Amino acid sequence: MKKHKVIFLPYNKEIIVEDGANLLHAALEAGVHINASCGGEGVCGKCRVLIEQGEVEGGKALKLGQKDFDRGYRQACLSHVKSDLSVRIPTESTIDAGVLNILTVPRQTAHDQKIDLNAIKEGGMFVLPVEKKYLELPIPSAQDNISDITRIINELKLKHGEHQLEVDFPVFQKVPNILRKQDFKVTVTLARPVNEGNKTRIINVQPGKRSNYNYAIAIDVGTTTIYGQLVDLSTGAAIAQHGDFNGQISYGEDVISRIIYAEKPVGLKKLHDVVIKTINNIIERIVKRAKIKSDDISAVTLAGNTTMTQLLLKINPWSIRRAPYIPTFTFYPSVRAVNLGLKVGDHVPALVFPNVSSYVGGDIVAGVIGSGMYRSDELTLFMDIGTNAEIVIGNKDWLICAACSAGPAFEGGGIEHGMRAAKGAIEDFSIDPISLEPMNITIGHVRPKGICGSGLITIVATLFEMGVIDHGGKFNRELKSPRLRENNGVYEYVLARAEATQIDRDVVLTELDIENFIRAKGAMYAGCITLLKEVGLDIQQLDRIILAGGFGEHVDLEKAMAVGLLPETDPEKVVFMGNGSLTGARMCLLSNRIRKDVIEVTKKMTNFELSETSSYMDNYIASLFLPCTDLNLFPRLKARLDARSALQKGP
Amino acid sequence: MKKHKVIFLPYNKEIIVEDGANLLHAALEAGVHINASCGGEGVCGKCRVLIEQGEVEGGKALKLGQKDFDRGYRQACLSHVKSDLSVRIPTESTIDAGVLNILTVPRQTAHDQKIDLNAIKEGGMFVLPVEKKYLELPIPSAQDNISDITRIINELKLKHGEHQLEVDFPVFQKVPNILRKQDFKVTVTLARPVNEGNKTRIINVQPGKRSNYNYAIAIDVGTTTIYGQLVDLSTGAAIAQHGDFNGQISYGEDVISRIIYAEKPVGLKKLHDVVIKTINNIIERIVKRAKIKSDDISAVTLAGNTTMTQLLLKINPWSIRRAPYIPTFTFYPSVRAVNLGLKVGDHVPALVFPNVSSYVGGDIVAGVIGSGMYRSDELTLFMDIGTNAEIVIGNKDWLICAACSAGPAFEGGGIEHGMRAAKGAIEDFSIDPISLEPMNITIGHVRPKGICGSGLITIVATLFEMGVIDHGGKFNRELKSPRLRENNGVYEYVLARAEATQIDRDVVLTELDIENFIRAKGAMYAGCITLLKEVGLDIQQLDRIILAGGFGEHVDLEKAMAVGLLPETDPEKVVFMGNGSLTGARMCLLSNRIRKDVIEVTKKMTNFELSETSSYMDNYIASLFLPCTDLNLFPRLKARLDARSALQKGP
Repeated sequence: MKKHKVIFLPYNKEIIVEDGANLLHAALEAGVHINASCGGEGVCGKCRVLIEQGEVEGGKALKLGQKDFDRGYRQACLSHVKSDLSVRIPTESTIDAGVLNILTVPRQTAHDQKIDLNAIKEGGMFVLPVEKKYLELPIPSAQDNISDITRIINELKLKHGEHQLEVDFPVFQKVPNILRKQDFKVTVTLARPVNEGNKTRIINVQPGKRSNYNYAIAIDVGTTTIYGQLVDLSTGAAIAQHGDFNGQISYGEDVISRIIYAEKPVGLKKLHDVVIKTINNIIERIVKRAKIKSDDISAVTLAGNTTMTQLLLKINPWSIRRAPYIPTFTFYPSVRAVNLGLKVGDHVPALVFPNVSSYVGGDIVAGVIGSGMYRSDELTLFMDIGTNAEIVIGNKDWLICAACSAGPAFEGGGIEHGMRAAKGAIEDFSIDPISLEPMNITIGHVRPKGICGSGLITIVATLFEMGVIDHGGKFNRELKSPRLRENNGVYEYVLARAEATQIDRDVVLTELDIENFIRAKGAMYAGCITLLKEVGLDIQQLDRIILAGGFGEHVDLEKAMAVGLLPETDPEKVVFMGNGSLTGARMCLLSNRIRKDVIEVTKKMTNFELSETSSYMDNYIASLFLPCTDLNLFPRLKARLDARSALQKGP
Repeated sequence: MKKHKVIFLPYNKEIIVEDGANLLHAALEAGVHINASCGGEGVCGKCRVLIEQGEVEGGKALKLGQKDFDRGYRQACLSHVKSDLSVRIPTESTIDAGVLNILTVPRQTAHDQKIDLNAIKEGGMFVLPVEKKYLELPIPSAQDNISDITRIINELKLKHGEHQLEVDFPVFQKVPNILRKQDFKVTVTLARPVNEGNKTRIINVQPGKRSNYNYAIAIDVGTTTIYGQLVDLSTGAAIAQHGDFNGQISYGEDVISRIIYAEKPVGLKKLHDVVIKTINNIIERIVKRAKIKSDDISAVTLAGNTTMTQLLLKINPWSIRRAPYIPTFTFYPSVRAVNLGLKVGDHVPALVFPNVSSYVGGDIVAGVIGSGMYRSDELTLFMDIGTNAEIVIGNKDWLICAACSAGPAFEGGGIEHGMRAAKGAIEDFSIDPISLEPMNITIGHVRPKGICGSGLITIVATLFEMGVIDHGGKFNRELKSPRLRENNGVYEYVLARAEATQIDRDVVLTELDIENFIRAKGAMYAGCITLLKEVGLDIQQLDRIILAGGFGEHVDLEKAMAVGLLPETDPEKVVFMGNGSLTGARMCLLSNRIRKDVIEVTKKMTNFELSETSSYMDNYIASLFLPCTDLNLFPRLKARLDARSALQKGP
């Protein structure tokens, strides 16, 4: 792909972008503000820039006159870079440029962490928990008339060195016909034990040679969304994936409302049935897409939070929501997938991730497993931010964890125009420090509908750094701008006016929204501080931060630190692993050693009920500020705030 | 109970009987012949005897005139002994008495072998495979918020020294509600491992204290009849029992016809369903009768022949009836009873006895276990005679076994008037050596309908010893008697004439019947000889004979030896154990050590396919005589035959 250099004037900021890149995005990446209300759809016309050198494609909509176009003006949000460029941004004052230069830092998101198959293989971890062996059995005769099953066992002992075998009951029923379908040539599936001292089990038998067709499915059972991934066990590669909303959503948005529903007569059965239905649909889709035989699926692993796990297993979650918050189990249950209602072969074992506590579930265990933090020397903070938020801190020697009552602010809950990360959500933002005019960038480059989690962080951080809101999250009453107003006694900032939105109303961020946001991020930050203090550590000692959950991929790290959602640290130390639950589930399909690790990790994870931890409330109150009461923990932010302050006082 | 001494004249034979005993029976037990055709119903009037001293109750029907009654005559079959007696039998000649004195021996049946619970307990074998433990768990609190299942496991470790535990999936589902029903007071059921190296499993959890209510069910799955027995595991006692015909009978009388039916579309499913239905009915009946809660049933063991076992488990028995006769499995399958369709708690493990080969099944393994022969020094012959016949020979060091193609003669099959041991079956018999008039005794003392297995043995043995039939089983053409006749070219003996039967036809024994009988007993005897020869032993070296199967209880041992069904030996060495399959199944409920023995015994039992064993055919042909070609193996019989021969020649 061709690359082009874009220079933004008068800031003299450069950035290298790919051919065809959106110019507004390029500015954002470079840390350059361009007024833009409509999210990139071209209707507000505010993002006019002058192309001084080079060429762009597009860049003209109704709001730009032909005369201006001929002079080289373009709408940045509609322009695509086609050569090296020199672009001038019209600024409203000279101070403007200077402030922006100092205060804005290039956007930086977390590094992606992917499963490194080669590392797994080279590390000797690629030890399949379900294996297939092709056998050409001796044909029975009067002299060799041992039973069918003994014939298989003997061959496995003799030719494959397999000892200490057990045979699952479905195999007894299949064996007589299967052996005789292709002259006693069969493929058996062996399931390796997870628990020390248990035996290898023969779980399936198929006619002929099927040893090259060995698949498994990893499922992340989320409160909102369920993802399934089909894994080819011969290579370890994920060959198909599908996600869908958890069918339980109609019975309640969060785990608490699901538990309440499960307490109604037949409520538990209903919730179990619908989640199984969702999973079955996902399995059907990915099996079809990958064009495999469903009898070649040898294993399923499932990970979810404690409530999702118990509903999946049809276990009453009643005690999860009542003090002292008791989960039913905290280790692997041994169950076959068909016994849960899953539509796979009756031989398929279901590996369900164990929970640590009522609010730190199998999804977090899977995330910790997927992140590898439990095998590392580095002191790591693992945060999974989804409908719920959980944190884990530790390394290969110890692990502590807690659930934070952060609420759903990062998924749009409790925020007036909050929404999930979907088309029309403002996901990026900057502001002109003088006019307070916004630059909104939306998912899908359409007119704004609302604000998603990563957008919310960036908006609050930017408003804070620009002095539009203060440490306490209150709007600066002294600023005068048409963007700032009081509405029914509540201050708010107008991100986009009705005519530039999809919802025929202004999209705003209110002081109440900011309050809710601060409570959410404060709960998580206080959780980290509390856990660290419990083990006698400071937040500066963290070597690494791992972000899991759908949220996190697009978060501007410097902004997340500026609001005190993350401790301020080198952004290079922050890693985004995406769906940690799915990653961990998949890794358990590839490695029986990792399955064993799960047991160790679950035992090792010391859970703190924050509400029962005496120091938590103090830490929480101290965290209800931007970024928190102790600005010294945020030196880079402090430097920027000082710089702004100096600029505002003037020379 | 009062006892009386009865002296039969002119033979001077004495016997002690209980008050009220039937006089005809008393004669039979004493080895005294009284003519009696009608089985004891009083209609033939032939059993007139003179009571010279003492008193009887009853003894008069239409056939006895008042005058004779007043003189002291009674019908023996209707008379009940009420005091010491002196009874004179009218004889037809003097030689008669002498012959009878020499040739008849007192009737002797095998000693009963019952389960000796005390011996099991004293021998340290009473080690329950399923145990209940009552736990008063600590109530959870914020400081003690471990999961429900971990709470149970910890308590078992701490207070009961239980380690290495696994938890069955149904327990996960039950635990949250059950724990909270009676303030965390619960009873858990533990299932001990059978296989070395496996773990104890928690299979059930019940609210409150149920540790004193622990039951199990033993099932004998016979081709014809199914028996169930409810066992109280706290004492070991059998507290209820019920038997019923196997519902599969409508699909075929024997295993071969069942296998053929199972090969039809849905045939396997149907046969599985009906046998499960029969078993469920039996379980329901015994649970109701014993007035126990069905949730307190903790285990089920089932034993049947190989075909019955495979149908029970819904495993295609196709290969059982085709050379080289391969069974599907020869060790315990691990399966829960509900997965077979049994209506018991979903936690109940089903222990299904392993098979040795296609025709030596779990019922025989159970019989060997129940007999204890595998723990004894004595060289033992175990015979199970039912719809099929199997033999096992050996001791604690080795065991050999075989199925004999004896056919169903002992259950009435292939015998013109053969029938099962039911009301109206002639079960005992003697003959007047001169007139050849019979004494028939029937089950239920009603007019004869047919001949059951033990009756058949006695009739053939008696006819043989009296010279009515010869070594080859042919009628002596020189004898003249209305009881002997030729019918459509086939010789037959008339046991009872139409007017004295229930079937409005003569009940007869034909030469063809005798031929079939000889083939059946010959197959078994030849089986014994063959097995013994294979290990270099002779039949005289046997220390003990164990008879199992419904058949055997009423067999007159001396007669069974006289026809060569059993080798001639001291009758004291013959033990009747009844339903060996049920006995073994029950013992496995009482002792986990015995469960382990089952695995060892099954491995140890070396199976011979007699049809593939070269010496068998010679042995079989040599056995197609009464008792066999080598009379020297039957010295007592030989002495009686010599005596008769001498008497017939006269002084």
